[in-house]
Amino acid sequence: MEIRLTSGKTIPVLDGETIYRSLKRQGVYLVSSCGGKGTCGKCKVRIVEGQVETLSYGKLGQKERAAGFAIACQAFPKGDLLLDIPRESRLAVGDKIAVSRSRDLFELLESFSTAVSPVVRRLILEVPPPTIHDNISDVERLKRSLQEAGIRGMRFSHGFVKSMTEALRNAGWKIVLGYTEDFEAVFLGSADKYRDRYGLAVDIGTTTVVVYLVNLGDGRLIDVGSTYNSQIRYGDDVITRIVHATEHGGLHELRDAVVSDINDLLAPLIERHGVDREDIESVVVAGNTTMSHLFWDLNPASIREEPYIPTVNFFPRWKAGTARVLVNSQAPVWTFPCVASYVGGDIVAGVLASKMHRNPEVALFMDIGTNGEIAIGNNEWLVTAACSAGPCFEGSGIKHGMRATEGAIESVRINPETLDPELGIIGDSKPTGICGSGMIDVISEMFLSGIVDLKGKLVKDRGGRIREGEDGAEFVLYEDAERSVVLTDVDIENILRAKAAVYAGVSLLLKEVGFGLEAIEKVYIAGGFGNYLNVDKAIILGMLPDLPRDKFSFLGNTSVTGAYLCLLSEDLRKEAEEIASKMTYMELSVSRGFMDEYLSALFLPHTELGLFPTVASLMKK
Amino acid sequence: MEIRLTSGKTIPVLDGETIYRSLKRQGVYLVSSCGGKGTCGKCKVRIVEGQVETLSYGKLGQKERAAGFAIACQAFPKGDLLLDIPRESRLAVGDKIAVSRSRDLFELLESFSTAVSPVVRRLILEVPPPTIHDNISDVERLKRSLQEAGIRGMRFSHGFVKSMTEALRNAGWKIVLGYTEDFEAVFLGSADKYRDRYGLAVDIGTTTVVVYLVNLGDGRLIDVGSTYNSQIRYGDDVITRIVHATEHGGLHELRDAVVSDINDLLAPLIERHGVDREDIESVVVAGNTTMSHLFWDLNPASIREEPYIPTVNFFPRWKAGTARVLVNSQAPVWTFPCVASYVGGDIVAGVLASKMHRNPEVALFMDIGTNGEIAIGNNEWLVTAACSAGPCFEGSGIKHGMRATEGAIESVRINPETLDPELGIIGDSKPTGICGSGMIDVISEMFLSGIVDLKGKLVKDRGGRIREGEDGAEFVLYEDAERSVVLTDVDIENILRAKAAVYAGVSLLLKEVGFGLEAIEKVYIAGGFGNYLNVDKAIILGMLPDLPRDKFSFLGNTSVTGAYLCLLSEDLRKEAEEIASKMTYMELSVSRGFMDEYLSALFLPHTELGLFPTVASLMKK
Repeated sequence: MEIRLTSGKTIPVLDGETIYRSLKRQGVYLVSSCGGKGTCGKCKVRIVEGQVETLSYGKLGQKERAAGFAIACQAFPKGDLLLDIPRESRLAVGDKIAVSRSRDLFELLESFSTAVSPVVRRLILEVPPPTIHDNISDVERLKRSLQEAGIRGMRFSHGFVKSMTEALRNAGWKIVLGYTEDFEAVFLGSADKYRDRYGLAVDIGTTTVVVYLVNLGDGRLIDVGSTYNSQIRYGDDVITRIVHATEHGGLHELRDAVVSDINDLLAPLIERHGVDREDIESVVVAGNTTMSHLFWDLNPASIREEPYIPTVNFFPRWKAGTARVLVNSQAPVWTFPCVASYVGGDIVAGVLASKMHRNPEVALFMDIGTNGEIAIGNNEWLVTAACSAGPCFEGSGIKHGMRATEGAIESVRINPETLDPELGIIGDSKPTGICGSGMIDVISEMFLSGIVDLKGKLVKDRGGRIREGEDGAEFVLYEDAERSVVLTDVDIENILRAKAAVYAGVSLLLKEVGFGLEAIEKVYIAGGFGNYLNVDKAIILGMLPDLPRDKFSFLGNTSVTGAYLCLLSEDLRKEAEEIASKMTYMELSVSRGFMDEYLSALFLPHTELGLFPTVASLMKK
Repeated sequence: MEIRLTSGKTIPVLDGETIYRSLKRQGVYLVSSCGGKGTCGKCKVRIVEGQVETLSYGKLGQKERAAGFAIACQAFPKGDLLLDIPRESRLAVGDKIAVSRSRDLFELLESFSTAVSPVVRRLILEVPPPTIHDNISDVERLKRSLQEAGIRGMRFSHGFVKSMTEALRNAGWKIVLGYTEDFEAVFLGSADKYRDRYGLAVDIGTTTVVVYLVNLGDGRLIDVGSTYNSQIRYGDDVITRIVHATEHGGLHELRDAVVSDINDLLAPLIERHGVDREDIESVVVAGNTTMSHLFWDLNPASIREEPYIPTVNFFPRWKAGTARVLVNSQAPVWTFPCVASYVGGDIVAGVLASKMHRNPEVALFMDIGTNGEIAIGNNEWLVTAACSAGPCFEGSGIKHGMRATEGAIESVRINPETLDPELGIIGDSKPTGICGSGMIDVISEMFLSGIVDLKGKLVKDRGGRIREGEDGAEFVLYEDAERSVVLTDVDIENILRAKAAVYAGVSLLLKEVGFGLEAIEKVYIAGGFGNYLNVDKAIILGMLPDLPRDKFSFLGNTSVTGAYLCLLSEDLRKEAEEIASKMTYMELSVSRGFMDEYLSALFLPHTELGLFPTVASLMKK
């Protein structure tokens, strides 16, 4: 059996495999918030020819079913198929992130004034070949040459020893030796046949996994891959993942999922660029505390239970072979240190990438992704906290929510006269949903034009786009014969909860350190939709503090940027450890003040309007 | 299907399993030089009731077949069986070695004046439990407590980190921590519930594998297991094993064989003494260079090719989990350092156990096992060499050769008048074969009574016990209606080659260091049949130098004794490394003098009779 795609590709189907899995196996990824459970309905495909057996049609309407649509994760081919994948169902792996980023990244690295110094160092050695009169063993021979080069105490793992007899002879005893900062041998190659060597920078996000393939010689970013974190099938947020991990076999499943994601992303990258896996000599991983624990195959149960204790914050160096990342099995895996159960290595990486830990000015760092984390400080002090914003800005829990890919409404302006929205859509196409930046836009616009009230409720008689839908009142952003994109009362409530959590976190953290908002000189926005966020609108929403606009900078995915930096610099790996040690963590969940701040922030923009002077003046207009 | 034994036990049979394997799986071991290939014919059993399908009868005669005998490794049960295992087929696992040895061993350890200091150290710690205000991770918490106890830089493997969250909580934060000399954490238990902890001392011989289970608290030897090295199925000596290792999959098979042997020996020991595998916290392994490489899963090919280079002599510390020894997976495995391709860790262990490296007097250490190795020296210098004696003293290549177990002829006296032999047999039974010590006895006796000549040939007209057999001339040691035990001309030639190699090695090594025989103050005999060797007879044979008898001591299996010592003492582990570093290795195979010495030693006792004055005087009589 096989599936032909209208785009031309042909894909073999294995017995008992859904369309979703067949496509995934061949590198055709579909959008799927639920990870193939049939609940999100986002992986819909159109059967042009052929028959399928379908477990469920999920949220597909009659019209769509009649038109041949099916949910790919619920449909099993009954024979050969001709399949059309609608644009909105196709998960664009890696696009939009990389392209021209390589130079920017390397410039960022250079701006730290640090030497390129990967996790694995290299040494060229000429080892005298053995003779009957100089017949010490290979290991002792190498040690002797190292000693002559001034290096003592090199450690050799079983895997290295196992490979070295052949490697020494293949290299004709003129070798390049790779070893870690703390003198553990990693690889042994021929000094005469120079080969490029590579590293992986990995960001394990709760929602997405991003892999950078980097040339360690010149620091060049070779290529980028990104995908949904397959753990999503076991839950959208860290709490549901932790719960799943404590169930029988759950930890194993979660670890398998994320390691497979990394390996699946890697496979096309190395194929595309003709890179030998064995030449990938180091891996740097950044993720929040739960993601790091799951990657490390550690039961995260105690992260969730008071007093919220992770097993480890400063991860020992690990080996790719043990981690099951399919690169050189001896390659060291360096995991970003975490700060506490809910402030992880991704935030340490972000602070590092922002450089706020090096500057005297007080900065606010905000990562608004699946979780919300905040750090405030400068080169003398750093405080941090987590506010459970939830994954709504990634599209989860929002009726037509989606990731910022083609077809997503990413910006909205509402005509104050007609109350009609003007939509900015990613790509040149009809809208298929709304992403995080679009949500922020539309609510702030709706608020200013009176379509929602201070509490975020739709004002029923305010224009013809408000109607009663399946899930209560909804605002119609777009509608044509085939589809509609709406925002419901429930959606707005979810978004307000998320923004309130973020703002309350900032407020409380500032109070704890005894500063006012005016002390903040810089605001760094990181996270999934950073680059697409409209600051004015986010301030109207009351998510960001009402500060001069020139103080805000967007840094994009700082987790993977930090991983890239640490892949290439020993100094920055040390700085990352210093940041993690230095950061004071505030546990908001046990703070009496947090609930007060949160409740005050549930309004648009805030109960205390004086905190938002520019919004107040807009409201007067 | 099942097999009932006449001794009472009942054993289930798995599909497609030979009788040999069924018995082995249930801990009933049969003698088998060929390791189940059907060539040695030593695993014969008698089918009392039931049917078997037989691939081959090997060397079984018609009479035996008619009596119901079959070769266990070639016979598949066709239904339930009643089986009788003749005494000579039963491999006595572990008997005769241990019994009252525990006290002797511990006294030996004490005689070194060294503290009991296993590979894994222990520390009792009270770790303050976490609170919401003291919420650092488990690893950092443990590190903080260690730092307060004055210990910095402890390393934590993935396996340890993975287990510690639960272990800390189960222990109620009052813990005992096990860690290696170089500060790698091994285990974490409850300080309140004290448990005994254990170690394994392992000797991997070319022919046999011996395991000591030792209580690391008091140094007590708990129990002993020994078995044939299953690698025998791929060849009797190290050279054939190396050849096999270079064949496709061969290395894997050889490693599997020896690791299975260790694990198979361990299983009944821990069951018998109620020891938890997790409480076995360290392993010390001694073996010759090839055996050590195969255990380490290293291709030994370059050991065999000039210039004879091992991959490693000083093995890094390894983990039981990686080594697949079924004890605590974090348990360190300490492998005895080797000296060169043909002088291995077993000899280093032997020199250590002999203490010759501590004493000013010049001593000769001889290990006469499957291989022959020699060391000469004292507390200032040590030289060593290997002479390929071959495995004939273990019974291999000798028509009725066998290991020194029940039924073996271990001593022989020949009446000079009647020329009839008087046999000493192990156990109270009829003889079934001849072991190494018996071979030495009988040839020296035959020589003195003129049954063999100076060249080792049977003198045909010398008494009625010489006859023409299947394999040429043979001397009948024993015969009754059921069986005979003979020594053939070919057997004698093989034994003379082995003894000549040993003696030539000693001669040449002494010449190289410029000493005469008279310089030797002590002769230590180690190896399989050490304790049963008659020195006078071995001198008549010309294997041992003709020195005063009070200079000779028998040390038994010094390889496992050395492993026991190093399991319990850090000082002795260091001494073993010093011995291996200090020993000068002589490559006899490229020495011009060796072949001369060897050819001179092929006679009885030697071409140069002046070297054997006591034998010369006996011959005059």
